[in-house]
Amino acid sequence: MLRLSEANACALCDTALLGKGLSGPDAATCRDAIVFASLRGLDSHGIVSILPGITNSIAQGRIDPSATVRRVGSNVLQGQGTAGPVIGAATMRRAIEDAARRGVGVAVAFNCNHFGAASFYASMALERGLIGVCLCNAGPSVAPFGGARPLHGTNPIAYALPGGDEPPIVLDIATSVAAHGQVHKAARRGQSIPPGWAVDENGEPTTDPNRAKTLLPFGGHKGYGLGVLVDVLTAGLAASTIGVEVRQQDKDREHAGQSFFMLAIDPEFLGGRAELRSRVDALWRQVREIPPARGFSEVLMPGELEHREEARRRRDGIPLYDEDWTALIQGLARAGLSGEELAERFAPIAS
Amino acid sequence: MLRLSEANACALCDTALLGKGLSGPDAATCRDAIVFASLRGLDSHGIVSILPGITNSIAQGRIDPSATVRRVGSNVLQGQGTAGPVIGAATMRRAIEDAARRGVGVAVAFNCNHFGAASFYASMALERGLIGVCLCNAGPSVAPFGGARPLHGTNPIAYALPGGDEPPIVLDIATSVAAHGQVHKAARRGQSIPPGWAVDENGEPTTDPNRAKTLLPFGGHKGYGLGVLVDVLTAGLAASTIGVEVRQQDKDREHAGQSFFMLAIDPEFLGGRAELRSRVDALWRQVREIPPARGFSEVLMPGELEHREEARRRRDGIPLYDEDWTALIQGLARAGLSGEELAERFAPIAS
Repeated sequence: MLRLSEANACALCDTALLGKGLSGPDAATCRDAIVFASLRGLDSHGIVSILPGITNSIAQGRIDPSATVRRVGSNVLQGQGTAGPVIGAATMRRAIEDAARRGVGVAVAFNCNHFGAASFYASMALERGLIGVCLCNAGPSVAPFGGARPLHGTNPIAYALPGGDEPPIVLDIATSVAAHGQVHKAARRGQSIPPGWAVDENGEPTTDPNRAKTLLPFGGHKGYGLGVLVDVLTAGLAASTIGVEVRQQDKDREHAGQSFFMLAIDPEFLGGRAELRSRVDALWRQVREIPPARGFSEVLMPGELEHREEARRRRDGIPLYDEDWTALIQGLARAGLSGEELAERFAPIAS
Repeated sequence: MLRLSEANACALCDTALLGKGLSGPDAATCRDAIVFASLRGLDSHGIVSILPGITNSIAQGRIDPSATVRRVGSNVLQGQGTAGPVIGAATMRRAIEDAARRGVGVAVAFNCNHFGAASFYASMALERGLIGVCLCNAGPSVAPFGGARPLHGTNPIAYALPGGDEPPIVLDIATSVAAHGQVHKAARRGQSIPPGWAVDENGEPTTDPNRAKTLLPFGGHKGYGLGVLVDVLTAGLAASTIGVEVRQQDKDREHAGQSFFMLAIDPEFLGGRAELRSRVDALWRQVREIPPARGFSEVLMPGELEHREEARRRRDGIPLYDEDWTALIQGLARAGLSGEELAERFAPIAS
């Protein structure tokens, strides 16, 4: 196992992203989104997958490093080939500006590339003491409840709620029961997947990850209902492609892409920022006092595992399998960067 | 089986609520909330439970029929002993006013009595072509994921999304896997409850409804995370009691009660109302084209069952077991109303 320090992860992102032509501010936004996910243990949305993803998309022309976000309406943004984190952060900033001025802000975006972890954008609201919510649609891979074929994407819901003496509560969940990455991992390891994760191409339930064709919503009709809410608040409000029409990546850069929905709320316009923080702190204390049920050793706040992981990884570095590091460097080399030089300058340490 | 016509259900509500001293507008609001739930098949939040609930609360002093909602802040309302639907509707009206003026509105309420079905308030936004979201906390009955004792309530999430040629999409879900009513019904019928619904007083999983002490969140840690979001957006933003502190009913009317969160969004300030309706219509068509998975005969939109039920019940009346009707009339009589007279004037028909 290798450990990549936070500093090296940041520097590697900066060097690679600037090397592919992103501006300083855009590279910094992408770096922050990537390192946020890697530190919190959201590895499928971190440096191993998103950094080569962005650099390769630039190499292949799906991301234009000199593109800028277009403001179609006061709170409707168009990606126009910008990197996902660039349009994601711009959208949340619009929501935050409105919230800071009048208590609540909503902004949407369409024609967007993959933005990494939704909780990064929700968490942007925390710096100002605000509540942030981020929703994102995606290409069809998840069935409606009772359906045999995909209707929409894993449609994540993320939120960030400011704490006082206690940490903020930050959660990031797909509305599918599992993510693609988990199915692929089981396939690579020759393991079966739990019943309820997926159906095969005929709509038959399967535990074979190689036959799993369509993911299922979490919690049956309830998770399905939340996935549809994500569809409508993102693509519906952004007047973009919805449900089965969504193409995450397409040659036709004008119309392809995901849609985002960002909501920010300033508690000061409602019950007060200090009051909100005190209520969040109270919830943390209440959760700690609840005894675990049979089979559990402790009761956690939503997102608490990721919060702990972040502290650990800031201290010890981001754990990487040797093959993940090799694949990351190869990915950067395929994008036209000097893989060997990057590997040497920002090397992880063995642990 | 009996069938109570929509007209008789409305007239019975009006007569009973006016009879207990509610003003005309407040009685009409309560009636609309009650009949909405009864028509959509949400019987645990309809005429059989909520009408006697309100009239008895008036008789016992928990609801003051002459109380008025207090505006503590521009978008923070206090119940002050008003009936739940009165403060619920007032809160959503505040959110809708802001949304119609500037695209989005949020309002919260505290110190509230039970308001029936959350989707009634979300649906208020539809009349104006807006999106509505309604959240509500409740007294502790649901464990955190992995916990043996309750942290918070069934904390429902409801939304209403306007359609064009197709119906609106209206969903109303508890963030617990099941509602109290379902556990009680199983107990009355001597049936067991499915694994995963509840734990007993020691935190052990149970399928015996009589031993079920604490409900479980739906979808494990994901539903739990949504329940916590409801806690913070309701009680946190309203600066009221949160989590285990919540008392739905209390002698101390000043501080007891639930909290509500209402969000309204006007699509016209984003991608446009017509565009939104066209996307919602497209989703309906897409859902109909997805073949059912094994074990299902059709694929439905979230809330479509309730939508169909509403059409059926408007035509055929609200189905009631004889004993439900008897219990309803007895409940009204206990509240000091003339049960016999009401039963005669607004009698259901046998079917």
